[in-house]
Amino acid sequence: MPLRPERLSKYRNLTRSTEIEAINLNPIQSGGRAGNYPEVVKSVLNFIDGYSTCDYCIKGRLEEIETPPLCDFHADLAEFIEMDEVRLLPGCRQAQFAAFHSLASPGDYVVIDSLAHYSTYLAAERAGLKIIEVPNSGFPYFEVSPELYAEKIEEAKRVTKKTPALVFLTHVDYSYGNLADAEAIAKVSHEYDVPFMLNCAYTIGRMPVSGRKLKADVVVASLHKSFASPAPSGILAANGEYAEKIFRKSTVKGEWSGRTFPNKEVELLGCTLPGCVVVGVMAAFPYVAERVERWSEEVEKARYFSSQLTKIEGVIQLGQTPHNHDLLHFESSSFFEVARAHPRKGFFLYDELKARGVVGVQPGLSRSWKLSTYGQSWENVKKAAQAFLEIAEKYNIPVS
Amino acid sequence: MPLRPERLSKYRNLTRSTEIEAINLNPIQSGGRAGNYPEVVKSVLNFIDGYSTCDYCIKGRLEEIETPPLCDFHADLAEFIEMDEVRLLPGCRQAQFAAFHSLASPGDYVVIDSLAHYSTYLAAERAGLKIIEVPNSGFPYFEVSPELYAEKIEEAKRVTKKTPALVFLTHVDYSYGNLADAEAIAKVSHEYDVPFMLNCAYTIGRMPVSGRKLKADVVVASLHKSFASPAPSGILAANGEYAEKIFRKSTVKGEWSGRTFPNKEVELLGCTLPGCVVVGVMAAFPYVAERVERWSEEVEKARYFSSQLTKIEGVIQLGQTPHNHDLLHFESSSFFEVARAHPRKGFFLYDELKARGVVGVQPGLSRSWKLSTYGQSWENVKKAAQAFLEIAEKYNIPVS
Repeated sequence: MPLRPERLSKYRNLTRSTEIEAINLNPIQSGGRAGNYPEVVKSVLNFIDGYSTCDYCIKGRLEEIETPPLCDFHADLAEFIEMDEVRLLPGCRQAQFAAFHSLASPGDYVVIDSLAHYSTYLAAERAGLKIIEVPNSGFPYFEVSPELYAEKIEEAKRVTKKTPALVFLTHVDYSYGNLADAEAIAKVSHEYDVPFMLNCAYTIGRMPVSGRKLKADVVVASLHKSFASPAPSGILAANGEYAEKIFRKSTVKGEWSGRTFPNKEVELLGCTLPGCVVVGVMAAFPYVAERVERWSEEVEKARYFSSQLTKIEGVIQLGQTPHNHDLLHFESSSFFEVARAHPRKGFFLYDELKARGVVGVQPGLSRSWKLSTYGQSWENVKKAAQAFLEIAEKYNIPVS
Repeated sequence: MPLRPERLSKYRNLTRSTEIEAINLNPIQSGGRAGNYPEVVKSVLNFIDGYSTCDYCIKGRLEEIETPPLCDFHADLAEFIEMDEVRLLPGCRQAQFAAFHSLASPGDYVVIDSLAHYSTYLAAERAGLKIIEVPNSGFPYFEVSPELYAEKIEEAKRVTKKTPALVFLTHVDYSYGNLADAEAIAKVSHEYDVPFMLNCAYTIGRMPVSGRKLKADVVVASLHKSFASPAPSGILAANGEYAEKIFRKSTVKGEWSGRTFPNKEVELLGCTLPGCVVVGVMAAFPYVAERVERWSEEVEKARYFSSQLTKIEGVIQLGQTPHNHDLLHFESSSFFEVARAHPRKGFFLYDELKARGVVGVQPGLSRSWKLSTYGQSWENVKKAAQAFLEIAEKYNIPVS
């Protein structure tokens, strides 16, 4: 139905100021800043048209296109994360679903860590799988142990008389930024002869990750979360027999037409991530390959930040301490006390931070909040920490 | 594994010249030119960071975000195509799969037109469905008839003792650019009480499409194909009970943690199309809403182009004549004769066109080829037609 032009005026001049006007500590955004990298911006502009990557597509498969160099890129990316086969998908959740859908059947059990992202639960649900959660150690460290993985695999065996279809681990979780002991959990998984799948949404593109060293059979990741890439983008990587199952070719045949598509991978619906997004990912690769080598400095920044904030009375950092990742979760009885008496309630913290040029802490939260120092200069890290200290002082919370 | 910087140099300076240096008639590209629209370019640049659309996300669902106005956009888009519910997905194929996966069960039959895109076959295969093809009328018109749909539904009933799970139609097919009689086929489908699903990859964003008028229960479309949008982007729209089934909420519950996600739509894995792509689609909307009203002129251009090319002896246009869409398929015994004797074989046509500033006809093809005049100025349409006439003359093919 024709819409009147004045109805459509709100879709003109769509701009964003967050990254320009303030230090943004939002943990889902910190690893996905593509605009910081001039080559990414340029390539996205060059390939902004819908099917721009298809100018020289000959075989009808994204990973075989030579201009732009998508073919090389898939191979280099596989080498970078040390996995046999890599495909690009429009997000980590789609990659998780594709693996679940290929390696398990409806009714099968999958054992996952209880810190998994909601998209893992939804991917399993969409694939008709049953979830067994591996408990975490709870407050204040929230860690998952290889021993409990073994227990839960045994539990699945008792219930179903067979091993679970998959063991799944979130490499670094979105709640506490805990770095799980992937290798040890892979070992447990393989002792039971169950494929081990690792969600690297918060690690690939931030820190060096080797699927080989971590003994992962399947690796998924979000590129717009940690690979300095535009959205939507993700990785699905697999080894050996699991790669064969996930990237199986189409066998359908039109009974009247005789049409077949033997070159197309059915789980990927033939072709996955065309256009400016995949080219943006490719342009981000050289930057990312370089930045993962500086990971230890990012951990240092996070630890510094944590050491500053925990000077505030009543503030503790949850999760592993000392911390091994830039995603930090704080709990604060003292800020919560302030919020209870404040006319803006929990929003006071957001307001006060914003007034000091810091955003990314969820508006309304004061009792506990998450943030990430990833990719910030030392100057910004110090400024942001200072903002919290100033707010504490303003509200008469002792700072040691 | 660390890659040496010189290995990565090929990912720098990723540029594209196709749209700048020549008239591009590639039919998969003609409706997806986003770079022609300044507001699209600007918005993509502004939202190039991975989770840029999440600055003000409160409820964790894309279609509820108010800044940028994604909430309004979903509602306006639904009104634009006259369907109850619209969601954005990373492509038409993902939308097809989501509908198949929600509305049919493995082993069910789906009746599809034999002109369907390969992604329809793959989406059905991935969902474990069996395909019954509706034959087309073959050379030279390749049309599908409502009567044959009825026959094939009867066939499915005979084989399975029940009606098929879905009737599927490609609104305009990718091979011949035929505009199918969707309303008549919807009528047949509904007489058997089977939901009717319409693939509008080549229509929504090019021409006015009303799901209500065409009596579609489910509509899918590719936005990077016809909506002047960056890739990957697509639409999944549904009405009434089918919308309820496809956009059903998650019911999974972590047995240890008690975690639930009742606000998330499981078939969409919670959230679908963040970042610069969705903002690009939104910025394209005002342009698209305007351009669909000029559809009749696009048909005129295609008919003019066809009238010119068929002046060449041995060249015929396949599919509906007069044609109702910009996607044109030509067959040419005369060019094929030239190719057989030419040192470059079928590539001569590509070479000759390129020398005249025209690209988009698949390299190597001379016996039959597809192209699209969509979005070209009259001047370009005439120039491109003239190029073919000149080539014919150069190789002594009579032109009437």
